[in-house]
Amino acid sequence: MKKIGIVGATGYTGVELLRILATHPDVEITYVTSRSNAGTRVDSMFPNLRGFIDLEFSDPTTDALAQCDLVFFATPNGVAMKHTAELVKAGVKVIDLAADFRIKDLDVWSKWYGMTHACPELVEQAVYGLPEINRERVKSANLVANPGCYPTSVILGLMPLLESGLIDLDNIIADTKSGVSGAGKQANVATLFSEMGESFKAYGVGGHRHLPEIAQIFSLIADTKVDLTFVPHLLPIIRGIHATIYANANNDIDFQALYEDRYKNEFFVDVLPAGSHPETRSVKASNMCQIAVHKNPESSRIVVLSVIDNLVKGAAGQAVQNMNLMLGFEENIAINKPALLP
Amino acid sequence: MKKIGIVGATGYTGVELLRILATHPDVEITYVTSRSNAGTRVDSMFPNLRGFIDLEFSDPTTDALAQCDLVFFATPNGVAMKHTAELVKAGVKVIDLAADFRIKDLDVWSKWYGMTHACPELVEQAVYGLPEINRERVKSANLVANPGCYPTSVILGLMPLLESGLIDLDNIIADTKSGVSGAGKQANVATLFSEMGESFKAYGVGGHRHLPEIAQIFSLIADTKVDLTFVPHLLPIIRGIHATIYANANNDIDFQALYEDRYKNEFFVDVLPAGSHPETRSVKASNMCQIAVHKNPESSRIVVLSVIDNLVKGAAGQAVQNMNLMLGFEENIAINKPALLP
Amino acid sequence: MKKIGIVGATGYTGVELLRILATHPDVEITYVTSRSNAGTRVDSMFPNLRGFIDLEFSDPTTDALAQCDLVFFATPNGVAMKHTAELVKAGVKVIDLAADFRIKDLDVWSKWYGMTHACPELVEQAVYGLPEINRERVKSANLVANPGCYPTSVILGLMPLLESGLIDLDNIIADTKSGVSGAGKQANVATLFSEMGESFKAYGVGGHRHLPEIAQIFSLIADTKVDLTFVPHLLPIIRGIHATIYANANNDIDFQALYEDRYKNEFFVDVLPAGSHPETRSVKASNMCQIAVHKNPESSRIVVLSVIDNLVKGAAGQAVQNMNLMLGFEENIAINKPALLP
Amino acid sequence: MKKIGIVGATGYTGVELLRILATHPDVEITYVTSRSNAGTRVDSMFPNLRGFIDLEFSDPTTDALAQCDLVFFATPNGVAMKHTAELVKAGVKVIDLAADFRIKDLDVWSKWYGMTHACPELVEQAVYGLPEINRERVKSANLVANPGCYPTSVILGLMPLLESGLIDLDNIIADTKSGVSGAGKQANVATLFSEMGESFKAYGVGGHRHLPEIAQIFSLIADTKVDLTFVPHLLPIIRGIHATIYANANNDIDFQALYEDRYKNEFFVDVLPAGSHPETRSVKASNMCQIAVHKNPESSRIVVLSVIDNLVKGAAGQAVQNMNLMLGFEENIAINKPALLP
Repeated sequence: MKKIGIVGATGYTGVELLRILATHPDVEITYVTSRSNAGTRVDSMFPNLRGFIDLEFSDPTTDALAQCDLVFFATPNGVAMKHTAELVKAGVKVIDLAADFRIKDLDVWSKWYGMTHACPELVEQAVYGLPEINRERVKSANLVANPGCYPTSVILGLMPLLESGLIDLDNIIADTKSGVSGAGKQANVATLFSEMGESFKAYGVGGHRHLPEIAQIFSLIADTKVDLTFVPHLLPIIRGIHATIYANANNDIDFQALYEDRYKNEFFVDVLPAGSHPETRSVKASNMCQIAVHKNPESSRIVVLSVIDNLVKGAAGQAVQNMNLMLGFEENIAINKPALLP
Repeated sequence: MKKIGIVGATGYTGVELLRILATHPDVEITYVTSRSNAGTRVDSMFPNLRGFIDLEFSDPTTDALAQCDLVFFATPNGVAMKHTAELVKAGVKVIDLAADFRIKDLDVWSKWYGMTHACPELVEQAVYGLPEINRERVKSANLVANPGCYPTSVILGLMPLLESGLIDLDNIIADTKSGVSGAGKQANVATLFSEMGESFKAYGVGGHRHLPEIAQIFSLIADTKVDLTFVPHLLPIIRGIHATIYANANNDIDFQALYEDRYKNEFFVDVLPAGSHPETRSVKASNMCQIAVHKNPESSRIVVLSVIDNLVKGAAGQAVQNMNLMLGFEENIAINKPALLP
Repeated sequence: MKKIGIVGATGYTGVELLRILATHPDVEITYVTSRSNAGTRVDSMFPNLRGFIDLEFSDPTTDALAQCDLVFFATPNGVAMKHTAELVKAGVKVIDLAADFRIKDLDVWSKWYGMTHACPELVEQAVYGLPEINRERVKSANLVANPGCYPTSVILGLMPLLESGLIDLDNIIADTKSGVSGAGKQANVATLFSEMGESFKAYGVGGHRHLPEIAQIFSLIADTKVDLTFVPHLLPIIRGIHATIYANANNDIDFQALYEDRYKNEFFVDVLPAGSHPETRSVKASNMCQIAVHKNPESSRIVVLSVIDNLVKGAAGQAVQNMNLMLGFEENIAINKPALLP
Repeated sequence: MKKIGIVGATGYTGVELLRILATHPDVEITYVTSRSNAGTRVDSMFPNLRGFIDLEFSDPTTDALAQCDLVFFATPNGVAMKHTAELVKAGVKVIDLAADFRIKDLDVWSKWYGMTHACPELVEQAVYGLPEINRERVKSANLVANPGCYPTSVILGLMPLLESGLIDLDNIIADTKSGVSGAGKQANVATLFSEMGESFKAYGVGGHRHLPEIAQIFSLIADTKVDLTFVPHLLPIIRGIHATIYANANNDIDFQALYEDRYKNEFFVDVLPAGSHPETRSVKASNMCQIAVHKNPESSRIVVLSVIDNLVKGAAGQAVQNMNLMLGFEENIAINKPALLP
């Protein structure tokens, strides 16, 4: 049994990690931290875990974390970068669910996250934890930067087209919609039930932190600078991301076959039959990404629809997928379960 | 045109007052205050009011408030009691939408609200603003204590039975359910969308501030001490209260006729046909209270169902109803509109 | 008082017409029809109308409808076209809230609606009832085709750019999201609460009836064929449409000023300050369309955000706006009310 | 691997059975029936099952069902009673998730379900499948009547008090609230999203089928006739039941200890710490029942709060719990997973 620590487990990605790992046969959660809730039983904050997690939150110490085989940081941006170097030096594998190690260009990172990076030397070394791109590198990584939720949905949705060079690189639009849990569990007027319920809006049209993350990966795949228009919206649901991606084909091939072929060996990417419209509920509580690709026969326009659960494939589930790879387990252990419908 | 001021208009009862008064032909909102948002345009905080309210929030001053004919306090508990005496002395009529003047017994008030009352001399003088009980007293009042949302639904629901002396006074249960807007607009983890959505729970089973308010009115009506079991719950909707009230009849009469007769002259209390189940949506955005009374023919049990919009008949709408009475207008001006359905 | 009839008033656009007209000072609803509910009181089906509408549903007869000054058809597609000619001949003005008279090209209409048109001679004569384009023609019309909900949001959102010739006509995308009430009140598994709640999906990517309606108006405005990519999605809310519209500028001007200038005299189109993100809730229950225009300074991409209430500006409210024009009333009577927020 | 058949698997209890059984290590779903969808792939109707269930719906035949070790009926009331006798005779174990075998008194059954029973001889033999009462009888049963969702929540909530004889039997009230999925997946105007969303109502105050089911069990436990007032309400959530149960104590003991002791060996009944308010979301997608018991120190009133997921402990999960017992497995296999929160 591998020993697992979770730093900052009082948020939504934290409780989701605990929920998933509670049924993992090969790991043991030994250490769960929260400065502000030290001494509180985990299951008194999260009653869904009663009978499954018999731990209290602890004040984090490096010594205790160094006893773990692998540590997840489910903390706000800027926390993991202060503690990761010590842990990696001590031989502990680290997965950061925040953004500290996602962006390779430190200037870009500082611009979007408003901080100077505390650990630049590890940024280059960190592996971007999207197994569908980086599986082999994740297996041997000491430090994995777990992707953002929007980037996961958009990159998986467009990757086959980018890899094949079949689309115009200057005319890509990602119109994305996310459930409210993506905004976290902080007390905030803007995400109150009475503010978010029965309503819908865009936000961040002028710029969003996930745009440079997506652009970085797109540019790596296409081997040239790729820009895109990225407009996020807030859905009055708790879990789920739906990305509607628009691109223009420069050639006419069987796009359905392209997608099916690209993902035929991927357990967590499911290309739906031609003509489908994936629903976010079909992946709720699951690590699946379901994708449909539509090509208008009378024009060059391609529309890709891609859905994930932002807390699972967009956060905790993907982190466990990465953990499984890093610790040498089967990739889908503990995340091989059907979604909850309805 | 009467001049109206609103103190603390950045919360949900505040914006609802503004929405209702915006279409009132005989009043003019001249002064809207908020310490923390002084200088902000009202319609930049509440875009639904663009084109209807052309004002900024001001830092409140007694001088400016004293220019008004009537002032609403849409503030947290404990604010109105500090400013009302001066205004009343200056001849300004005051309606407090909070709880400062609802409870006559100051010890009870202090126990539940955790403060010493700053203005005991006005408590006795304040009129409890439920027009269906106190219409004539409201008309001549200088200070009205606008009732709580739960008390409005429960008192209107049970009043005909209490007045008639037809039920046991020691076996009354009010199982009440409220939309989340009743909890206000403060940043609070407990009322986030992701906490409240797709869930339901009771709260305050051990005691709730609205219990002594209801008990006080029940005791006045019954002319003896009346206790009740009061259990509030939180509904994953924005607006609406549903009270399910249980009582035991000590006599068998035509309860439907009793209710219809009691409320036949009340514009805002609507007794539904026998066998009905009122829905909260049928009173959404309206000042109506819809009531159904059910008597089990095989037992003495009576079940009363009572619905209101907590922000309208449970707060701002009832406050406008009181204002209309206090200023000598027709009682239903500006609140004589059908509910929004669906 | 003008006499108003409503054919097929048991659906959501029907009840919304009744709600709005109940407070209209210059009209009287004299005749409300429903074949399947003839004899039922209107307010027993819609309890929000108790005290406001004192009518029963009638079996429709041409004689009775001919007594009205104006008749609304709130019926499924294909009904109004069978009865309108007789009414128009009898001097009754008609507003069809369905699609029977929206599309001028009868072949296109038949293709999308799956019927042969029963009244081609009136199609040409019908005025497309978007007052912001056709105000003067609506005033003198006998027959108005009330626009679809998506078309209203998309046309108002893009019109200033189309009129000014400032965008590429071959690269327009409308990513639209609608509340469930747009799907109507028919019993249907797909729109059950348990199917629609806590989920989100696109539909009709391969084609939707509102596409040719939008394209027709766009082509009229641009005076050349305009195509667009139109992808509708279903939101888990009851009311509200949000259109996110993407276009490429061929010139760089002050787009904010362009929009403000275009709509400065329009009561029901409200251009928000630069940088805004309109929310559907800010127009809930109101006839407003709120619009924000965003231009990326580093690219040619324009993003327009446009919100309406699909049942009001997208249906019944716009129909009343048209009625006011046709009957010589002030355009905003009965629809000059702030939205319901929260 | 035991062979499992499911009759009528296109509804919500059917898909939930499939979701749970898909991860059960000791059973194999071999046969899934639906008359109206024969030939359709299960995962084309339920995309959450893609990759987990590789079956088509079949037209049911007794021969094929007789090949199974155990058959679930997830059918409307009145179906299982026509087919169970043959299956039991063939040695197949049967669990009926509908109401055909829940009520022992056939006159009562006929009154509430509006049919004559087709198989009275099996009614007496059927075991009421609430393992917390009938564990040993379920283990040896050939036919299990899976309890209703409301009865499960109410019986588990009140059982310790009834067994101990500590409450008045003539003054019990169960005010219950259920998510909409409890109403099933039939096309129905009343359960449309636009009808159920943002609203709340009681229904069946005059009588509900689950009342005689609860009363029957209560009377068995108390060994005398027990009546109760039962008022169900509809919550705008998909999953979850909350029962608020009121009783009067005839003695004052440590009720918290009573409950903890009664359920200390029950895996699926979790008594929360004193003063708790269980939330339906804490048991979403799980087979847990969470209970809190509150006693007012100043009166004899006891308030019990009990939550379950109506599709799991209230239907499919409890059915699997019964299956595990009937087939000699550990009771909690495949249902030993934390709830989904948030």
